[in-house]
Amino acid sequence: MSDTGVTVKKNVDFSEWYVEVVLKAELADYAPVKGCMIIRPDAYAVWEKLQEVVNQKIKATGHRNTYFPMFIPEAFLKKEAEHFAGFTPEVAWITQGGDTPLEERLAVRPTSETIMYAMFSKWVRSWRDLPLKINQWCNIVRWETKATKLFLRTREFLWQEGHTAHATAEEGEIEVMWALNMFKDVIENYLAIPVVLGTKSDSEKFAGALYTTALESIMPDGKALQMGTSHNLGQHFAKVFDVKFIGEDKQDHYVWQTSWGITTRLIGAMIMVHGDDKGLVMPPKVAPTQVVIVPIPFKGQEAEAIAAKTKEIQGILTAKGVSVILDDRQEYTPGWKFHQWELKGIPVRIELGPRDLKAGQVIMVRRDTGEKIPVKEADIAGTVEKLMLDIQDNLLAKAKAILQEKTTLVQSYEEFKTVLDSKAGFIKAAWCGNPECEAKVKDETGATIRVRPFQKEEPTTNCIICGQKAKETVYFARSY
Amino acid sequence: MSDTGVTVKKNVDFSEWYVEVVLKAELADYAPVKGCMIIRPDAYAVWEKLQEVVNQKIKATGHRNTYFPMFIPEAFLKKEAEHFAGFTPEVAWITQGGDTPLEERLAVRPTSETIMYAMFSKWVRSWRDLPLKINQWCNIVRWETKATKLFLRTREFLWQEGHTAHATAEEGEIEVMWALNMFKDVIENYLAIPVVLGTKSDSEKFAGALYTTALESIMPDGKALQMGTSHNLGQHFAKVFDVKFIGEDKQDHYVWQTSWGITTRLIGAMIMVHGDDKGLVMPPKVAPTQVVIVPIPFKGQEAEAIAAKTKEIQGILTAKGVSVILDDRQEYTPGWKFHQWELKGIPVRIELGPRDLKAGQVIMVRRDTGEKIPVKEADIAGTVEKLMLDIQDNLLAKAKAILQEKTTLVQSYEEFKTVLDSKAGFIKAAWCGNPECEAKVKDETGATIRVRPFQKEEPTTNCIICGQKAKETVYFARSY
Repeated sequence: MSDTGVTVKKNVDFSEWYVEVVLKAELADYAPVKGCMIIRPDAYAVWEKLQEVVNQKIKATGHRNTYFPMFIPEAFLKKEAEHFAGFTPEVAWITQGGDTPLEERLAVRPTSETIMYAMFSKWVRSWRDLPLKINQWCNIVRWETKATKLFLRTREFLWQEGHTAHATAEEGEIEVMWALNMFKDVIENYLAIPVVLGTKSDSEKFAGALYTTALESIMPDGKALQMGTSHNLGQHFAKVFDVKFIGEDKQDHYVWQTSWGITTRLIGAMIMVHGDDKGLVMPPKVAPTQVVIVPIPFKGQEAEAIAAKTKEIQGILTAKGVSVILDDRQEYTPGWKFHQWELKGIPVRIELGPRDLKAGQVIMVRRDTGEKIPVKEADIAGTVEKLMLDIQDNLLAKAKAILQEKTTLVQSYEEFKTVLDSKAGFIKAAWCGNPECEAKVKDETGATIRVRPFQKEEPTTNCIICGQKAKETVYFARSY
Repeated sequence: MSDTGVTVKKNVDFSEWYVEVVLKAELADYAPVKGCMIIRPDAYAVWEKLQEVVNQKIKATGHRNTYFPMFIPEAFLKKEAEHFAGFTPEVAWITQGGDTPLEERLAVRPTSETIMYAMFSKWVRSWRDLPLKINQWCNIVRWETKATKLFLRTREFLWQEGHTAHATAEEGEIEVMWALNMFKDVIENYLAIPVVLGTKSDSEKFAGALYTTALESIMPDGKALQMGTSHNLGQHFAKVFDVKFIGEDKQDHYVWQTSWGITTRLIGAMIMVHGDDKGLVMPPKVAPTQVVIVPIPFKGQEAEAIAAKTKEIQGILTAKGVSVILDDRQEYTPGWKFHQWELKGIPVRIELGPRDLKAGQVIMVRRDTGEKIPVKEADIAGTVEKLMLDIQDNLLAKAKAILQEKTTLVQSYEEFKTVLDSKAGFIKAAWCGNPECEAKVKDETGATIRVRPFQKEEPTTNCIICGQKAKETVYFARSY
């Protein structure tokens, strides 16, 4: 562990604060290869928790995990023109194997539609083979040229990608929404981050998709972060990769496809949204360690009694399925330990000193509020259980309030620019639907349409850019 | 599913039989990129089971999962000369990112010692930071030029790699053996494959290691397969990457390191060892589906009663934690279903027809022996539970008998060659310890020393190659 805590305040220099928390709480580190990161155990454990939850949900609905090669022949990427144009600028290319130059260079997967659907075309023969619903957890490479941001922008990251093929357009649409809502559940109920659901504008959709749905959120610095996407691919890829089936009607049909994914950037979002000036704050449901017990050392018989009691408490909580660390290291003081475990965001700290021992109690300290709660011995397990729920709820409630506070409805392009440069966040504005207006905003302000929300709001003005009749209210923001 | 079963007999053309089982049981497929494979859901589920078991064991002993970049700068690989020489011929190189040629080409990880230990050097400061015990599950690339063999030889595969750093040589040695025995437990008790444990000869050890320990087994065609390795790296890498710590004695010391791993080739071993002429045979403990229920269709009221009863049985078994498929598809006959599920290796099939319904029983069919067992309704759950254990035990016992049968002690080089070209398998022979004798055998026969067993056997002859005094009895074999 690092020797000092976070030295920058979250609301003074957010970007520097973030880097300090990530490095000092040992969530990630810069790799010795440019643009790449190391995901350290406390962060990787969050990813494993997300994997567990997502796996449970996708398997319960008949999706199955699989693994495809990460090498994609250039010719495959090229088959769908939009897709190729969208991804090629960021592709890492393998050109040599051992001592031999390759005849055709291979892309390291920026996403796996093309190589997967080449196989779908072989595997899908009849309506009996549908729906085909697979998923893979893997590494992805996109050769970013902008500055590296741990978890948020790295050349390699981890994700899951679900890919499905269906007999009808309607089934495809249902799948797109199923995946999106599954992600909403995971992000809101595990990471405690509220999200806005909707579709992307055409200019922001996935390269090759019919349309893209997404979950968007606002970070404390007012920038939007895309938390996950679910694409309706229609029959675009099916036609290019010849994924056909013989229907019950004995006729040939192209399948209808979807793809959807979340990435390790969600860990970055969790850090940004919940962290504070003391460091990380882990939502209990994803925290690799939920409780840390710190004995307050004393001498003689009392020390032994405290040691025995803290071990007993550890046993009781472990038996209840709580993940507990008993930090009884002799070489550190209790104060030092408090700071370290606060930095690492452990939801609840339990202190036990000689006075507590006599009183038959412990002191519980909530990481989210700092509140100190004396708890009678008999109530320890029950109180921890309740605190886990309370802290989880409180983090989501606080994040919801911030999301709301950082969402502004504007009446004009002037107001739009003022808000964007002051508080930023989501800016709800009336839009005519014309991509030119969207492009103008992007050129002039850097903000893009993050999401066209499913929860429709009637425009209260004409299009704030061109003044023509507005079609809808959309969410603009500058984004990660 | 494919329309036909396996057409080749295991003991007639083992190699072709293997390919048919893998493809027809839908365990893997050749990828459209040369040398690569797709791991399909039924095989990936076995990998997930192995991950679950290994994760449980490594986490219980203080190891933590992490993720390092798959790109390794060429300069890093070069730092340990033996390591570089060992891996470079099989490295895939990234030379271009987007439109820009890279200044230094990047290796796609053939193993992660170098990039990990560069970070260890930064993270390890004092004895308090030790032991450092991490693990990662990831993809690995080795640019094989020999013919692709699904699961056994592909350019990309999946593995886990454990990496640890310790304060003393002794702790490192203990870790090496801990990992090896952990693998033995997983391979024997989950995959039901017996293994021989020992060290590798110097010429076969991991590039850069002090010594390599390994688990070796014999496949039904008499060729050896390395099932896992655990390396004692000593201080080689620590010195090259400057991984030092200040001891309790206030002095600088280099750490002692280990690394160890198993790969997706274990799935290939499972297929080869247990499969038969009908297809795959899954050991119950790793089978994604343990029981398939096939209702024998009938008309009218009886059909409804059978449907209801099979659903009830599915519910009962699911509640007991058994993984069950109820195959009530109308479009296939029971006979077709029997063949398909046998091909896929499901440990137990439950049949229920009108006569069984009347008799208040089901028929259970063991995949490993083909035995048909009438089971009274009330005994279904208990019998399934017992069959899972019996089948698991039976598969291991059968495999142990084969391993023993395929192990031969020879007295001379002549006998060695005769055995190698007839039954093959492990050939136990006396060896003087001279690498020149080892090299001669390899040159002349293609066989290598697979393992110097921990379970020592006194040599019964002089070295079978040079005739000098023998040091030990070692296991030779031709290998995958």
